[in-house]
Amino acid sequence: MQDLIQGLKKENTTKIVMLVSDGLGGLPMKPGGKTELEQAETPNLDALAKRGAQGAMYPIARGITPGSGPGHLGLFGYDPVKYLIGRGALEATGVKFPLGPNDVAIRCNFCTLDAEGKISDRRAGRIPTEESTPLVLKLREISIPGVEIFVEPVKEHRFVVVLRAEGLGGKVADTDPQREGVPPLDPKPTEDCEGCRRTCQFAKKFFEEACKLLADEKKANGLTMRGFAKLPHIPRFEDVYGTRAAAIAVYPMYKGLAQLVGMDIVGEPATLSEEIDVLEQCWDDYDFFFVHFKYTDSRGEDGDFDEKVKMVQELDSIIPRIEKLGPDVLIVTCDHSTPAKLSSHSWHSCPTLIVADDVRVDMTEAYSETESECRGGLGHFPAVELMPQALAFAGRLEKFGA
Amino acid sequence: MQDLIQGLKKENTTKIVMLVSDGLGGLPMKPGGKTELEQAETPNLDALAKRGAQGAMYPIARGITPGSGPGHLGLFGYDPVKYLIGRGALEATGVKFPLGPNDVAIRCNFCTLDAEGKISDRRAGRIPTEESTPLVLKLREISIPGVEIFVEPVKEHRFVVVLRAEGLGGKVADTDPQREGVPPLDPKPTEDCEGCRRTCQFAKKFFEEACKLLADEKKANGLTMRGFAKLPHIPRFEDVYGTRAAAIAVYPMYKGLAQLVGMDIVGEPATLSEEIDVLEQCWDDYDFFFVHFKYTDSRGEDGDFDEKVKMVQELDSIIPRIEKLGPDVLIVTCDHSTPAKLSSHSWHSCPTLIVADDVRVDMTEAYSETESECRGGLGHFPAVELMPQALAFAGRLEKFGA
Repeated sequence: MQDLIQGLKKENTTKIVMLVSDGLGGLPMKPGGKTELEQAETPNLDALAKRGAQGAMYPIARGITPGSGPGHLGLFGYDPVKYLIGRGALEATGVKFPLGPNDVAIRCNFCTLDAEGKISDRRAGRIPTEESTPLVLKLREISIPGVEIFVEPVKEHRFVVVLRAEGLGGKVADTDPQREGVPPLDPKPTEDCEGCRRTCQFAKKFFEEACKLLADEKKANGLTMRGFAKLPHIPRFEDVYGTRAAAIAVYPMYKGLAQLVGMDIVGEPATLSEEIDVLEQCWDDYDFFFVHFKYTDSRGEDGDFDEKVKMVQELDSIIPRIEKLGPDVLIVTCDHSTPAKLSSHSWHSCPTLIVADDVRVDMTEAYSETESECRGGLGHFPAVELMPQALAFAGRLEKFGA
Repeated sequence: MQDLIQGLKKENTTKIVMLVSDGLGGLPMKPGGKTELEQAETPNLDALAKRGAQGAMYPIARGITPGSGPGHLGLFGYDPVKYLIGRGALEATGVKFPLGPNDVAIRCNFCTLDAEGKISDRRAGRIPTEESTPLVLKLREISIPGVEIFVEPVKEHRFVVVLRAEGLGGKVADTDPQREGVPPLDPKPTEDCEGCRRTCQFAKKFFEEACKLLADEKKANGLTMRGFAKLPHIPRFEDVYGTRAAAIAVYPMYKGLAQLVGMDIVGEPATLSEEIDVLEQCWDDYDFFFVHFKYTDSRGEDGDFDEKVKMVQELDSIIPRIEKLGPDVLIVTCDHSTPAKLSSHSWHSCPTLIVADDVRVDMTEAYSETESECRGGLGHFPAVELMPQALAFAGRLEKFGA
């Protein structure tokens, strides 16, 4: 599909806004009740629904609950099964580390080891960032022949290690035993591959050197390694679609995902309102704007229906500011549902709204799960088919064939 | 999909009519307005809608605007991306030239060259067919060692050249520079392939020989070559589906497309009413009837909403004549939308109606874009899934698996 789209792309001056409210889709807490989106007062979104078309979108496929990585890749038009991004690579890009083709990224946790080398606290007492950062920087002293090593702080007990050498493999099992009272596991390949064995040797050596450097620490005197990952080769968003793309997000992981596909990360907003400030400021510099709102997901994960309703209302409140900019295509959607009832991501469809001049206005009267699923003019479709529609409504695709 | 269908096909005496109203799908000219199909008085189509089921069909995929070739191949159940047919091959089949596997077809335009060999008129003053045909026939004198050459008139300044030799390649750029004041370009391969280089040599030699033969002409003393194309290997419609298929169309290109998949081209109708005459006349001789109505597309391309509405009404008016024949399955659809608002093909879905004894009658009350998209019983589906449904409703598919 992306090959087809890439061959048809046409440049023009239209602007596309994709507003992604993370985990927006929900469920009623009780049979016969309303979803978070139905419960919320959303006059602006409902007005958009009346002049747009809705569809029910599946992030990966029906029945599949996506993580944030696959959820966003689908929205950006990348087959999330083909471009599976390991946790280590996600974390590294989240802290803006520029991963290259010879890199294996690893998520590391400081842990506390007892005198026998067994884990007594898997998160090193949730050591605060101020205390952990100097320790992370100390680990940069480690040098191992045959491999370049990068060590990057993340937050609290979490940091990232990147091993760089030609031919390293990324198929390595976590060393975190997922329980206390046992030592960290040795790194083991999960596939029979020479490159993976070399990664394991370097990782083991790194662990040993780190333990020496951390020997005098009380909390963080050891580490576990998880999510070993190489970066898949991902075609650049601009090369595929011909749009200059800006990503506006508060959380590092979403910035990282956008950066992985080659979007520019714009601004340092801390709230949704500040994100719209950034959108206004960079409006003339880009054609495509990915705007990410985190808190519908966060409150869904908390299982807090009422707070999620408030977040939906916050989302609704900024719609007029986006409309005022006059996007040619405005999309409101989510990367997956996070119903408060489930306190987790879910497999349910994502209510997806497209507003554009040449949209066939459908029968829906409000922006909601039921409206989009039952009488949305866009029907039901997988997320990878969203970008082609966005580009079509923006007049950015040539005719296929004669 | 076609392999699956071919393995399940079952012959019986049922008859299927696929009525294709080219470019039928539309858009309101203004927000809140009606589409051409909604504006038109269509009592017969609406009556069919009440006793049939509708769906929203995508010719290629969401967001993709198809040309006529891919649009029709999809309707016939052939993956339009896999079976991409170049313009030269389309034009050749349009004039009923039986293209073979060793043929490269080329669309040629007579042009006017000045004394320096530069193009002064890209269409040779739109030379009338009476004048151009003798010149085309004259070009049949050209003989080049190593290649068989066929030259076929089309219309006005247009003709077709077919080069036939084993191993010729079709990946060659147009020689039409798309502007006047410069000479025609030399034919150049667009891929690094020996067969393409040979095609270029023959094409260049043909150009030189043609210029000699045309040297004394005032208008048509040169030519440009476009749309170099080999024919993909396309399985025959009858082999795949087991139906004897008749194509009834006014325009050569649609006859050509039908012929490419192995349908019989029946009659020489000049109007929709004459097409239905032909349908009546050949009713006993075939099982599947592709009836093509051109003018909904033409008026859409003109941007003439009111005239397109009239064409829709003309389409509606012949429905009773088709019903009288008693088809077991009657399909009304289009190869793509051509909204008058856009004056061009578009990516919007095609309202598609199936009437058959065993159809599950849906909630739609009228034949229209909104009805089919928002509450059509057939949902949203790609065009390649239309033929399997047609055959199923005709009782022409065996059970799959035990």
